[in-house]
Amino acid sequence: MKIAIMGYGNLGRGVECAVSQNDDMELVAVFTRRAPETVKTVSGVTVYHVDHLLEKKEEIDVLVMCGGSATDLPGQTTEYAKYFNVVDSFDTHAKIPEHFARVDQAAKEGGKVAMISVGWDPGMFSLNRLYAGAILREGKDYTFWGKGVSQGHSDAIRRISGVKDARQYTIPVEAALAAVRNCENPELTVRQKHTRECFVVAEEGADQARIEEEIKTMPDYFADYDTTVHFISEEELRRDHAGIPHGGLVLRTGKTGMGGEHNHVIEYSLKLDSNPEFTACVLAAYARAAYRMSKEGIMGCKTVFDVAPAYLSPLTPEEMRSRLL
Amino acid sequence: MKIAIMGYGNLGRGVECAVSQNDDMELVAVFTRRAPETVKTVSGVTVYHVDHLLEKKEEIDVLVMCGGSATDLPGQTTEYAKYFNVVDSFDTHAKIPEHFARVDQAAKEGGKVAMISVGWDPGMFSLNRLYAGAILREGKDYTFWGKGVSQGHSDAIRRISGVKDARQYTIPVEAALAAVRNCENPELTVRQKHTRECFVVAEEGADQARIEEEIKTMPDYFADYDTTVHFISEEELRRDHAGIPHGGLVLRTGKTGMGGEHNHVIEYSLKLDSNPEFTACVLAAYARAAYRMSKEGIMGCKTVFDVAPAYLSPLTPEEMRSRLL
Repeated sequence: MKIAIMGYGNLGRGVECAVSQNDDMELVAVFTRRAPETVKTVSGVTVYHVDHLLEKKEEIDVLVMCGGSATDLPGQTTEYAKYFNVVDSFDTHAKIPEHFARVDQAAKEGGKVAMISVGWDPGMFSLNRLYAGAILREGKDYTFWGKGVSQGHSDAIRRISGVKDARQYTIPVEAALAAVRNCENPELTVRQKHTRECFVVAEEGADQARIEEEIKTMPDYFADYDTTVHFISEEELRRDHAGIPHGGLVLRTGKTGMGGEHNHVIEYSLKLDSNPEFTACVLAAYARAAYRMSKEGIMGCKTVFDVAPAYLSPLTPEEMRSRLL
Repeated sequence: MKIAIMGYGNLGRGVECAVSQNDDMELVAVFTRRAPETVKTVSGVTVYHVDHLLEKKEEIDVLVMCGGSATDLPGQTTEYAKYFNVVDSFDTHAKIPEHFARVDQAAKEGGKVAMISVGWDPGMFSLNRLYAGAILREGKDYTFWGKGVSQGHSDAIRRISGVKDARQYTIPVEAALAAVRNCENPELTVRQKHTRECFVVAEEGADQARIEEEIKTMPDYFADYDTTVHFISEEELRRDHAGIPHGGLVLRTGKTGMGGEHNHVIEYSLKLDSNPEFTACVLAAYARAAYRMSKEGIMGCKTVFDVAPAYLSPLTPEEMRSRLL
């Protein structure tokens, strides 16, 4: 199937790499809002300005949307779902229902399949919440994130005056995790679930004590957490904190037996060296599903909940049953 | 939806319990090959002899098959898929393709949905192998079982002369698990992955050294493993080893990046106090899916790979998107 990428940042590069790992996919183009001659792809695939996207309609089976959720995807996915099978990683959880409604209308208008909110959370974590909840009907869900870099929290620190650069790690609290795994069904506050660790490069002469105080008391982002702040050099930041690792865990504990006498723990965890590259791999798998479902005449907006797992695998049904079942 | 149970052992009792945890399900009958008056259900639901099953055809939406894979399910699922939507937990991995083919023909003949090999392995573990393999295309799969009771291995010990009763636990080797999680991609022998621990009640005067030797050298079951044998009293066995716990882990590690420079670990694990009750919960969720898919006119044999996750949840699509995605 012929794949195109819309938007060429970390995620777009990740999709380029993911497509190269899938024998049944070919990357045919990258589209950008920048001047195409300024964008150099890793694989050498041609870069076009987004203005030429519709002209290539017949050459593209699935368009993978690689913009951001805040400002790019709400408009872009809705617009292009009229013309292409699309997959996006829209991750503003609270706005998913309205995004779904808009994209669904567009995709039905165009007779296309539009997969939204694909990645790991939303995405694989959501799937695991659904499966575990359908199995253990009497139980409790827990989601932990990290250890990993939160781009939003890093950006928030960078906006403080006197801060040159920063990297923030979200870290699950081991004691909380242990209590969950032990079926204690703890009620956990925000502070009890995660800690936040910040590595900050201050501008020369900046008041570090004031910066640290501003970070630790920042509402929503840090005030509700136990936060540690380390001041480091620009060189250290580049050397030790260049990666974009992330991950996390979804757990459900529940009881069975006529007296609820048996405990069960379902746990799904991810440990990712590169958040965007892993997300891109999930996007590629769901691009395959979008293509296949579209071929079957299915249309409209879909999420990971609507996709039978078999659509994701390059194996035949017979191979799946004999090798994986 | 109206559920009936075929076969009332540990699994059947587990399904009875699982149905009671699902508000949208009602248990209407239990069928048995034994004399019905000798079978007492936990919930008090009526027990019929299997000879009366077909008479109840119109009162049953899904028949959950709770027999064993060795001798019951191959015949039973095939037979009853002609008349009922059925779900089974057929778990003889090597024979799944032929079971599928037979059941598929029967279900299509009857215009019914037949879900086979539902549970945790095959079942949830299979799903996780499929999802992880579709995402991390360049990687390696690992499945570990335990700590848990293997019924087959316990039975094998019981067949040794001089053995009154026995319980065998399969235990994953921590060092192997650590190497996998550390992305070392180890090639693991059977012995390196699991150890086997046996609790044996010997008959009075039996030669314990001979029994231990027979266990440890038993081909297929124990010879390829590091096996520990403990002799205990009947009372100790009853007191400390009455449960049927099990569980295990499915891991996939893989690489991304143009130079394969980033490692990722996907891990799914189950820790179950009661193997049959958990399996029963999975059967109940897939019974819901079978019912819904049948209502949509779908027919034939299906596995967990063919079922869109949304079919499993009692939530509406809107609720799923807003609460779980």
